Amino acid sequence: MTEHSLWRFSRAIHHALNEGQTDQLEELLDDNVEWAIYGPIDMFAFLGARRGKAAVIEVIKQIAKAVNLHRFDRESIMLGEDSAASLMRYSVTPKNGAPISVRLAHFAQFKAGRLISLRAVMDTFDLVEQTLGRHIHLPKIA
Amino acid sequence: MTEHSLWRFSRAIHHALNEGQTDQLEELLDDNVEWAIYGPIDMFAFLGARRGKAAVIEVIKQIAKAVNLHRFDRESIMLGEDSAASLMRYSVTPKNGAPISVRLAHFAQFKAGRLISLRAVMDTFDLVEQTLGRHIHLPKIA
Repeated sequence: MTEHSLWRFSRAIHHALNEGQTDQLEELLDDNVEWAIYGPIDMFAFLGARRGKAAVIEVIKQIAKAVNLHRFDRESIMLGEDSAASLMRYSVTPKNGAPISVRLAHFAQFKAGRLISLRAVMDTFDLVEQTLGRHIHLPKIA
Repeated sequence: MTEHSLWRFSRAIHHALNEGQTDQLEELLDDNVEWAIYGPIDMFAFLGARRGKAAVIEVIKQIAKAVNLHRFDRESIMLGEDSAASLMRYSVTPKNGAPISVRLAHFAQFKAGRLISLRAVMDTFDLVEQTLGRHIHLPKIA
């Protein structure tokens, strides 16, 4: 039984984020990989959509420069033959900022062991408030 | 081959949200169901964590009162024997508000055909901005 593509990919991306080494990750990205982490690109330019290996490597380098990753907990995981979905909780520190904790759900698709699609959804309002270090007043709608 | 629990649950919850009929849904919730849609509870009191069938039925009624659901698209889905994860895009109109579109990832666990756990992550900053109908200025962090 071979290892699921998610585990190789997960090691490679965390290695890239923590050590700035992207060689392993490059081998695991399809040339035309589709990538999106939905969120406020005004605050974090590394959020949003990217297309292709070079663009994804570049965005990983931007994330590695912008935040220190301390730990992550996988709260839920589903594995298919060539796909995976996880609900994760990341503890990170933005450079020059205080530690924050963000919940992120990602859906990944692989082909021949390489990532062809990744889409991630975060509780971005919580991310913004934690990053600002203050509460944003909201009207009560319902 | 029996139908996956997700499909029955999905029909029942949309029936409850659209028609206000919660009978079908009640049959598909475990008595001790754990439930969480992470997001700003100041703006939407129906967000946050709930525990138990009665609390979840109550929150569904609150959501049904607060928003009209127009359509949803399932962008990704993973099904396990007793679990499911979906990336969805919902088109909804808050009562007295303009139509908005929100992306939501949910992870569900079933036991004997009943929901025992549901956790959902949304792009909540986008939700807040769309609901307010205006842009919230954010500093550029990275």
